[in-house]
Parts: sequence; C-alpha cells; structure tokens
Amino acid sequence: MNSPKLTLVGAGPGSVDLITLRGMNALKHADVVLYDALVNPELLLFANSNAHKIYVGKRKGEHHLSQDEINNLIVDSALTYGHVVRIKGGDPFIFGRGYEELLHANKFNIPAEYIPGVSSSSGVPGLHGIPVTHRGVSESFWVITATNSSQKIPDDLRSAVKTNATVVVLMGLSKLDDIVSLYLSHNKPHVSVAVIQNGSSPQSQTALGTIRSIKEMVEQKGITSPAVIVIGDVARLHPEFPNALCNQDSLFASFN
Amino acid sequence: MNSPKLTLVGAGPGSVDLITLRGMNALKHADVVLYDALVNPELLLFANSNAHKIYVGKRKGEHHLSQDEINNLIVDSALTYGHVVRIKGGDPFIFGRGYEELLHANKFNIPAEYIPGVSSSSGVPGLHGIPVTHRGVSESFWVITATNSSQKIPDDLRSAVKTNATVVVLMGLSKLDDIVSLYLSHNKPHVSVAVIQNGSSPQSQTALGTIRSIKEMVEQKGITSPAVIVIGDVARLHPEFPNALCNQDSLFASFN
Repeated sequence: MNSPKLTLVGAGPGSVDLITLRGMNALKHADVVLYDALVNPELLLFANSNAHKIYVGKRKGEHHLSQDEINNLIVDSALTYGHVVRIKGGDPFIFGRGYEELLHANKFNIPAEYIPGVSSSSGVPGLHGIPVTHRGVSESFWVITATNSSQKIPDDLRSAVKTNATVVVLMGLSKLDDIVSLYLSHNKPHVSVAVIQNGSSPQSQTALGTIRSIKEMVEQKGITSPAVIVIGDVARLHPEFPNALCNQDSLFASFN
Repeated sequence: MNSPKLTLVGAGPGSVDLITLRGMNALKHADVVLYDALVNPELLLFANSNAHKIYVGKRKGEHHLSQDEINNLIVDSALTYGHVVRIKGGDPFIFGRGYEELLHANKFNIPAEYIPGVSSSSGVPGLHGIPVTHRGVSESFWVITATNSSQKIPDDLRSAVKTNATVVVLMGLSKLDDIVSLYLSHNKPHVSVAVIQNGSSPQSQTALGTIRSIKEMVEQKGITSPAVIVIGDVARLHPEFPNALCNQDSLFASFN
C-alpha cells in the first residue's frame, strides 16, 4: 500500500484539457479519487482503473456529504488505501475549502500537497472573450464568492461595489437579486455585467447587460448555476456586448 | 503552410508541469513560439523542433522589444509561418497584455485563441502554503499590479488598502516602499505580508513579516523580482510565519 497522502488538485474551469500536467499525473497515481459536481466526469477516465472513485457532491440543493463528512472520508481513505486525490473545479484554494481539508488531514499526520488549477474566476471570462484585466479598462480584479459562511452578501462585496476593480463573483447566481440591489443602492445602474454559465463546456451560455438589465437577460437565456458573474467595463469587451468596446466578433477563434 | 493564427498560452507559475494539457498541445503544434522572461525555458523543449523560437523579453532593465514591436512580430510571424504561440507566465489575460496582442492580430484578420494558465496570483501563494482564501480568514482576494501604465501606485491599490480582501500584488517588488508607506498611512502596520520570489522554482525564496517589518525581511533574504506579494491574514497561514495561525510545518509535502 502507498503511504497515506492527500493531494488537492485543481481541475480548472471544466474542459478536460484545462487541467495541468501535474494534476493529471496525480490523478493517474491515485488510489482514491474524491470528486464533486464542478469536476468534469471525463477526467475520471484518466485515473488508474483500480482507483476508488467517490462522488462527494456538492451541487446546490442536491443530497451531498457535509464538509465534516468529506474531511473524515479523506482521512479514512488515506489510512485505508494510501494516496487520496481530492479533485475540485477551478483551484482548490479559491473558495474550495481545500485548505480546511489539508488542515484536517494534517491533524492525522497525513501529508498534503497542493496542485493549483486554472481558476474559473479568470479562465471562464477569458474563454468567453473577456479578459479580467486590460490596459485602459481595468487594472485589477477582485474575486469574491456570494455564498460565504454566513449565507449573506459578504462585506467584501459591499466594499467592492465602491471600487473600480473588475469584480468576479463565483457561486453567486442565486444572489443576483442582492448583487443588483447593492449596485443600484450605490447608484451604479450602468455598470456592465456578464453572466457565464458552464464556463468551458460546449453548453455554455452567456448573458450580457448592465446592472439594470442583467436579471432580465439571465432569465431570457435561462441561465442556471454554476455561473461566473463578471462586473465592470471589461464585460464590454465581449464581442456580442451591445456597443462593445472593440469589434472582433468573428475572430475570437475558440471559447471552449 | 498553416493558416495564420495566434494562440495566447498561459504557462502558469513556472514549473513545466503546471502548464495545462491544452497549452502544451498548442506548443507542440506551433510554427513560431514567442516567449518572455517569466516563462520556464524548459517548456521550449516541448515545442516542435522545427518551430522558430523567439525571445521577446521582457525582464526589468533588460534590453527587450517594446509592446508595439511584439505586436508587429506576432503579425509578421503569423503571416509568414502560420501558427504563432505566444506563451506567457501565469495567465495571458492577467496583466499580460495578451488582449492587446489579440486585438492587434485581429486587425490583420488573424484569428486568436486564448488558453488560460494558472495565475501566479493564486498558484504561487498556494504552492508556498498560503491559500488566497480560507474560511474565517479571508473571503475574497484582489489581484493588482503595482506597475501599471502610469508607473505610479495604482488607484485600485489605494482602494484595496481600506478593505479586508487578501491583496495580491504582482510585479510589485520595486514598489514595496510605496506599498508599505500606503499601508502605514492607513495606520495598518500590523497587517501580515508574504513576499515570494520565483514562485514555483526550486530556487524560490519567501520573506514573511508585517507591513512594518517586511522591507527588512526582503532585504535579509535578498529577494529580487519577479516576486508575488500577498497582503492579509492568509499570509499567517504560512507554516514558518511567526505565530502562524496553524501549525503544520513538516506536513506540507511539496511547495514546488
């Protein structure tokens, strides 16, 4: 048996080939793979065929393991089978609770390794023609989740609305009403917004608009979670944005 | 000859195996590879041996091509040889001026594709034991460059200092004095800071301290650019931080 070990792997924004070589290699050498809803299931085909592959949730509203149960499963799996690969959408240390899993494993003397992934916060907008930074348009970006531990709109988002940063909200679609209200309360109805569903899959969908119009656009397109929300002028670089800042419609070769 | 095309590839934070599979695949099919100082030169070994490999700079103070010259070189190379892979450290759309290159290519009817990379902003801290987010410590992170188009401390950094976000400053080491002064002027001498040089290489170095002490620590360690600066309580999760928030020194398996 391999000695107990935890490897936290970032799967990236969705497409199988957007994982890193190091992440793929870890997957191939796993004794156990724990994966959740944001991970492309095709990635599991690359794991060792003898590896135990366990779905641990968690998509909204679905039956899933609690974080404590996942933590315990990691430890039990490592002590029983050896090398546990915990694969997560995006990057494990960006709202992935990966560091909590690392700390829990460490309590049981199980060493942990982190393999970064392409975060959906930058990768998803980029794959859809929206750079999170662009000279003269945005010189910084601020990544926030709308579903924090208190289930309320986080204070950081209340701060972000006052700044010029590109604001990228992850796991925020169910809070879109609150986000829109927040921007309106700061008298910012004209700020540009893009909402991108299923970032790097062929079924991806994008709604474009302003704070005032985005809820209607999201409804029209029937966009559901998971989705990335990009707030700020860079959204206007999307080739289909009404009055887009630049015109390169037909030339952005691949969004997937 | 392949038809003219530009592919912007993110090489990730440094180690060869932190590029994505898609990025590696593009590299293998390039007719021309344009790379700069932040890209690990070992990656070039994976390019087609017949591909033209051109160094375009630009490390600080070094002779290098201007952005206009790079833009023109992309277009000339694509029209002459076909598929140009422009490979950049981190992600091409995070302060990489990649979108400017895409727009320029588009002007000449050269289609462009974007392949995201692991941003150094999250990958480098993570590889050194600092998650940019962690429940109860930080619920967002704000990525800023200290060397913007005006060469001054950007306004966004002046806003960031007032917030609770983890602030990650890229290309900021030469502005460390200004950054420290900014935090001191907001009466924040005790905010934790980590400065990490050469993120994912074995020669990487880390200085840990507070706003008040970090300049001395950087000097003691002899840290030079390129470096990632992480400002906020998450820096205290680094196992060697004095009074670290958690103790798991010996258990963080691999930083590289």
